[in-house]
This record gives sequence, C-alpha cells and structure tokens, in this order.
Amino acid sequence: MLQNIRVVLVGTTHPGNIGGAARAMKNMGLSRLVLVEPRVFPSPEADARASGAGDILEGAQVVATLEEALVGCSLVLGTSARDRSLPWPMLDPRESGVKVVEQAGQGAEVALVFGREHAGLTNEELQRCHYHVHIPSDPAFSSLNLAAAVQVLAYEVRMSWLAAQESTTAPVAAARNAELATMDEMEGFYGHLEAALVDIAFLDPEKPRHLMARLRRLYGRSEVERSELSILRGILTETQKVARGEPYKRKDQ
Amino acid sequence: MLQNIRVVLVGTTHPGNIGGAARAMKNMGLSRLVLVEPRVFPSPEADARASGAGDILEGAQVVATLEEALVGCSLVLGTSARDRSLPWPMLDPRESGVKVVEQAGQGAEVALVFGREHAGLTNEELQRCHYHVHIPSDPAFSSLNLAAAVQVLAYEVRMSWLAAQESTTAPVAAARNAELATMDEMEGFYGHLEAALVDIAFLDPEKPRHLMARLRRLYGRSEVERSELSILRGILTETQKVARGEPYKRKDQ
Repeated sequence: MLQNIRVVLVGTTHPGNIGGAARAMKNMGLSRLVLVEPRVFPSPEADARASGAGDILEGAQVVATLEEALVGCSLVLGTSARDRSLPWPMLDPRESGVKVVEQAGQGAEVALVFGREHAGLTNEELQRCHYHVHIPSDPAFSSLNLAAAVQVLAYEVRMSWLAAQESTTAPVAAARNAELATMDEMEGFYGHLEAALVDIAFLDPEKPRHLMARLRRLYGRSEVERSELSILRGILTETQKVARGEPYKRKDQ
Repeated sequence: MLQNIRVVLVGTTHPGNIGGAARAMKNMGLSRLVLVEPRVFPSPEADARASGAGDILEGAQVVATLEEALVGCSLVLGTSARDRSLPWPMLDPRESGVKVVEQAGQGAEVALVFGREHAGLTNEELQRCHYHVHIPSDPAFSSLNLAAAVQVLAYEVRMSWLAAQESTTAPVAAARNAELATMDEMEGFYGHLEAALVDIAFLDPEKPRHLMARLRRLYGRSEVERSELSILRGILTETQKVARGEPYKRKDQ
C-alpha cells in the first residue's frame, strides 16, 4: 500500500537534500522517489546523506517534467507556502497523511510533490495538484529544509498508515503490558505504608493530617505495577524490622 | 511558552546535524538549544546547515553533562529506540507534543533530549527521562537522521501549540496547577532514597540490580509535585534516623 505513494522532488539544487529526503522516506517506509530535473544527480553528496537508503537513490526515476512524474496518479499533493494569489484546497500535514493513506489503501497512485529549495513550486505546477499542503511553521522563519519537509510529510503518512493497520488488525497494543496492581493490592500497600510510617514516627495517628491522602494521590497517579508494588512492600518490611529493632541483613556497619 | 522548551543534543558527532537541528527548531518556533559535549562546536558546517537559524547556534549553551543540561526541568523526554531491557513509559511524537505543551503552558521547564548519531542515549541517560519517545519508523531501517528527529518532535510541539492557541478562549482546565519538582530536586531525592535503602539494608551497593532504575521509573511516571517530594524526603530522613539508632520522636512504644 505504501508502495502506491511516490515522493516527487522538483528542480532540487543541492544533491545532499536528495539524499536526506531518501533517508527520511526509507525511515518512514516509503520507497518510490521521482526527481524532476535535479541539478546534480547522481552525486556522492546525495549518497553520503542517504546513509543506508542508497537503494532508494538507485531506484529513483529521473524525468524532465512534473507531468511525467505524475503519470498514473489520481491524487497529487503539493507543498506550498500558505499565501498564494490563487486560493486552493489546503491541507495540513496531518490531514494529508490521512488522505494519502485513504487513497493509497484503495489502490490509487498518490504523489507528494516538493518544490525547489528557494523558489518552491511554480503556480503552474501547483495547479497540477489536487491539494496544497502547508507545513505550519513560524511565519518569521518559514522555509523548511527540503529533506525536513519530506520528513514531516512522510512521518504523517506513516502515523496514518500505522493507525489504519491497528484498526484493521484489532486489539490496541497496551502502552505497558506489565500487570498493574489491583485496587485491593493497593489497599494492602497503603495499610502497610501507614503502619510503617507510624513505626518510624513520621505519622502521628492522633494527628494524621492529610498525609495518607496525599500519598494515595501520588502513588495512584503512577499506575503501579504488581512487580513495583512488591519492591515497595519489601522496603516497608525492612523499614519496620529496623524500627522494631529486629535483626536485619545489614552488613556494612 | 515555547521558550520554556529546550532541545538538548547529547554527544553530537557531526556539526552539520547541529545546524540542521537549529534550523528545524527555528522553523517550528523553538529557540533554546543546549549541547552536551558536542564533538565540534562552533563550526562552519553547523552554520551552513543552520541557514538563517544562526542566532540559535550563537545562543546555544554548551555543557559537560546531561545533568547540567536538565537543571530546572520538571519534564524530560528522551528519544529512544523501542526495545530496551527496562520498559519505560513510552510516548509517540504526537503524545509528546501534547504533553510538552501542556506542561510548558503551566510554566514548567521542559527538555527534549536527543542522543548520539549512532549510539543514541545511554541507559543511564534514558533513566533521567520521565518518558521515552519513539518515532515510529520502519523497523527495517529505523535510525533517523538527528536533525530529522528534531524536526518531527518540534513539528508535533508546534501542532499541539497551535491547537492550544486556537482553544485559548475556552480555557483548558489545568489538570494540576501545583508546582512540579525539578529534575535536580528529583536527583537529590533519588540520591537520598538510595542512601536510605542502603541504611535499612534493602539495597546492597555491591548488587544493586535494577532497583534504582525501577524506582526512578515508578516515581518518574508520577510527575511528583514539590510538596509531595518534601513528604517523601521527610520519610527518608526519619527512616535513616531509625536505622542509625538516633533519637526520634516515636511515643507509642
């Protein structure tokens, strides 16, 4: 499905950016690169920046016009500064990722088009795009490096693709798969904690103030795992032995 | 608010990547760069790749340790490959953007930490982070260029910040408005905790296993408030008095 997506770089001046773009693509699982009139290609600089994504450079198609680059595509997105005399349907990178994956998933060929380092895409080129994509940048310093722009869009394609994978395969992977302590285990811990705090005279049962409530809130936020809970209880048990003057396993004094 | 966010690059080898990171930051409205032991800095290569973001390089702070870089921070996110022997709370870049903006918006100092080009962050460095961020990449080719990684995270911070700007008229209910403990305060706590655990013989300094790492992970998840931290330290102080046989205020035995 990701193989239905091509990245098109138009009139790239610096070969290092072609290499950087190839690396960004490969990191995000994209593989098809089309170069429209690159100033220098192939080039050792591109190879160096690609750093492991040399296969994408080797497989890159070099063409003379944007039209050729877009043959077979039914969805074309072009990156653009926000303000254009000609208003056009605009997407942000996130919306672009969703739309690209939606279309590519239905078997459509999709192109993401990036313009020249300084001049971007011409109005004529932009008019060949179904949507314009604006990467939200600080208006005071808005021009992204070309490879960085490819990175952002490729990243959003991947995020959207991963979300689509998950929703088709089903169960949401738990962020942590460690077993969390149950409520009753936590109650057992709080009881033990309170007893130990009394034993070391940190907690005065006659003036408990809000101490236990505050500690409950702290540990409650943590979503304590069962194995962590046994560490905490181990600490409490040792603390109590010390407080009660029972023998404990200390050897360093 | 964005000025509460610092980007920390640890042990960067290629100065070009420092420049690329600075440009990515400035594009996304971030300005504070901290470099921990860069191999070469300043450098003409960094200046060239920064391309207009030279002010960020000029203002960059160079320090010798990650600890120094994190002084004053109460939320630290570190980029990491997914698989680690020690599971840690993981965020994807989007969740990171939300969390960073949420905390920075409440006045907290936040750090985004990026490791060395080939080796990433060490386990010790990763244990200083509240969360690990994994940029979802193709497992077959997962190592992003450093500046590209900065670009993705800075982009997600900006997306989240823009969304917050839009909704500022309807005030976001602050989840908590209590002051969080800073990283250096937390380090003080961990040092104290370790000493107390040795005192009660729960921790054998010769066989520490992963005990401190596991406790760091537990408390790190909690985003401990300053007032909670002083309760925890109070408990440790009393525990140590007991362990050392010093007089303490117990009355019930």
